[in-house]
Amino acid sequence: MIKDVLDKEDFQVVKGGITYPKGIKAAGVKCGIRFNKKDLALIYSEKVADAWGTFTTNKFKAAPLMVTEKNLSLSKGKLQAILINSGVANACTGEKGLKDAWEMANYVSKGLKIDKEYVAITSTGKIGEFLPMKKIESGLKEAISKLSVSGGTKAAEAILTTDTKKKEIAVSFELNGQEVKIGGMAKGSGMIHPNMATMLGFITSDISIKGELLQEALKQVVEKTFNMISVDGDTSTNDMVLLMANGLAKNKLIHKKDTAYYKFLNTLQYVAEYLARCIVKDGEGATKMIEVKVQNAVSFGEAKKVAMAVINSPLVKTAVFGKDPNWGRILAAVGYSGAEVMPDKVDLYLKEKIVEDGQPINFSRQKIHEYLESSDEVKIIIDLKMGEVNATAWGCDLTYDYVKINTKYS
Amino acid sequence: MIKDVLDKEDFQVVKGGITYPKGIKAAGVKCGIRFNKKDLALIYSEKVADAWGTFTTNKFKAAPLMVTEKNLSLSKGKLQAILINSGVANACTGEKGLKDAWEMANYVSKGLKIDKEYVAITSTGKIGEFLPMKKIESGLKEAISKLSVSGGTKAAEAILTTDTKKKEIAVSFELNGQEVKIGGMAKGSGMIHPNMATMLGFITSDISIKGELLQEALKQVVEKTFNMISVDGDTSTNDMVLLMANGLAKNKLIHKKDTAYYKFLNTLQYVAEYLARCIVKDGEGATKMIEVKVQNAVSFGEAKKVAMAVINSPLVKTAVFGKDPNWGRILAAVGYSGAEVMPDKVDLYLKEKIVEDGQPINFSRQKIHEYLESSDEVKIIIDLKMGEVNATAWGCDLTYDYVKINTKYS
Repeated sequence: MIKDVLDKEDFQVVKGGITYPKGIKAAGVKCGIRFNKKDLALIYSEKVADAWGTFTTNKFKAAPLMVTEKNLSLSKGKLQAILINSGVANACTGEKGLKDAWEMANYVSKGLKIDKEYVAITSTGKIGEFLPMKKIESGLKEAISKLSVSGGTKAAEAILTTDTKKKEIAVSFELNGQEVKIGGMAKGSGMIHPNMATMLGFITSDISIKGELLQEALKQVVEKTFNMISVDGDTSTNDMVLLMANGLAKNKLIHKKDTAYYKFLNTLQYVAEYLARCIVKDGEGATKMIEVKVQNAVSFGEAKKVAMAVINSPLVKTAVFGKDPNWGRILAAVGYSGAEVMPDKVDLYLKEKIVEDGQPINFSRQKIHEYLESSDEVKIIIDLKMGEVNATAWGCDLTYDYVKINTKYS
Repeated sequence: MIKDVLDKEDFQVVKGGITYPKGIKAAGVKCGIRFNKKDLALIYSEKVADAWGTFTTNKFKAAPLMVTEKNLSLSKGKLQAILINSGVANACTGEKGLKDAWEMANYVSKGLKIDKEYVAITSTGKIGEFLPMKKIESGLKEAISKLSVSGGTKAAEAILTTDTKKKEIAVSFELNGQEVKIGGMAKGSGMIHPNMATMLGFITSDISIKGELLQEALKQVVEKTFNMISVDGDTSTNDMVLLMANGLAKNKLIHKKDTAYYKFLNTLQYVAEYLARCIVKDGEGATKMIEVKVQNAVSFGEAKKVAMAVINSPLVKTAVFGKDPNWGRILAAVGYSGAEVMPDKVDLYLKEKIVEDGQPINFSRQKIHEYLESSDEVKIIIDLKMGEVNATAWGCDLTYDYVKINTKYS
């Protein structure tokens, strides 16, 4: 079970990113899809890694996701390289798009001299356009020549689209005296919504762990992190999270759910949550991150329904932008979330308790307004008082700039 | 079955509103809840009317809805008067709020000398505040004294909150040589979302129809009209649609689903759809109405999922505001709607066909941009090519003004 509050003493956050673990190299180059910006990233593990991925639930799943899913299945959960381009999503591109995606995997396989089924590919950007394959082919050659242990940051830059900041993290922890490392990077911005929709996340580790446990850990962690964020409720066609673990840390293989497994799980959760939070903080036009914690629900599913309804409510989002302690909009979202709630029991905290048993209590609007004004991270706690399960979701406010960015997109 | 395209020859739209049917009087007065604005409306039927209502699905159901639902149940579907106040929603007000709501019904019962169980009451406005009962009591006296057959428009004005326009309609049709009338009024604006959430709608008629058929007709019509609109996906605590039919048209009682019933059903559908469209056209900050028609789904439920996902997508809504023919965002919403779709089959029309079998075809972006620029009502057609059922949803674009209005609300 993942701890509610992570014990940070179990691991250390250090400078670095995707190439922090042993045996991981990366590069980020300009191949010419985006004007004068890095747009092609390559991640490479010296040793074939145990790997797993979670993929968008959008029915219009983009071609690269089909290729990556297929390869993960063919290789029975192994990967050695991930190629990512930004600028063109290769979604809604039919048979030609699928052919192009396979061709990208071919390029990587040939260029790195690795098995084709050990290659994952990913694209992000505009829908309905074909990839400029020649640019990708020559860009990839450059990327391969530049692969290095210091290439993580450039790779993190090359996967961005409307993001304003790169998102990367590195952590270190110990398992029985052996140092184990995890590195990660992500991109997000608009179209961020749960169900493994809506963003790219890449996590590497040098941990030695049985494949099935790696899969289970990723699935569990994604459910509580990347799947709990939303910028605008829109779920994209392309997004995925990939995790590779190459075993080079030489810790004793984790083959069951022992203390070492949970230590890894908790650290992985921290990495994923950090990246997920970076994504919503950098949501299109966002001025504030919003964290909604739902407490004492009867199940995670019920808690999640409530948290996601609140985090997605345009009226809550605009109220936060307006620094308005509009608890009524929050309760309304709780009420239409589809979860079973007992209206006469619900408590609501915005800095302090402002609603008790479904009714507002005497609080200083001015004080809460000041809290909203001064906080970059606004915390909303909803206590359902029905059970014992919690869920936390992250989102951002809805601003003039969100409208501006998305009005002027194409 | 409700016709897809209504045959307007079956009825006539005339000037008027809620008091157009025989025996219906109304009034709208300023009782002092809202500053210098009408805020109390009363609708009265000379004869006890068969009646029915549909109510918000929000778990935080406001007190007046509980009273009205209870009365409809006690009276077995009869009403004679409806009292509506704007400015204060009487939601999240606990036991005192419920007591106040019953007291409102008492006032009406005493003032009009009618059975208490024939009274419906409704409130709209801010959540979490108590009603100023003295103001309502004295305002009601004035409203009763002003009840008249020409009071419909004032009543339609008194129920508005952030709406910019009153919404009313009157239609006339014939059943076996006898004229039958329907009148309606509504309020909407923000927090408009399906599931009988989010707005007030009142419809009166002098038709003579069996109670069960009236109920069924309302339920069916609301499902295809008021429940198919969305301004921002938020579902409020207060909203309802009420229908009264007092029989004074003296048509032969409709007691089964014959031609007369379907003629009534179609006319009612027109009235409800007109009011629903008025609501989205007047959505907070809206510059354009968006109509999404989903064709050839396997069921209404599936078609509705797709239509509502598209109409609620902030990315689609901002694209329409920006006059951007961004078909990719529309397909993405189809894909995450939760409906079963076959991506390789979907066609999309925006003025003309622009996507065929899930891929863009060669169309003039400039031409579609001009269509979006010049149209107050943007029509999106999505053809799933899987079955034979259609659904239409209505919404509006997402604009700077939406953010402005909702940022500065309280």
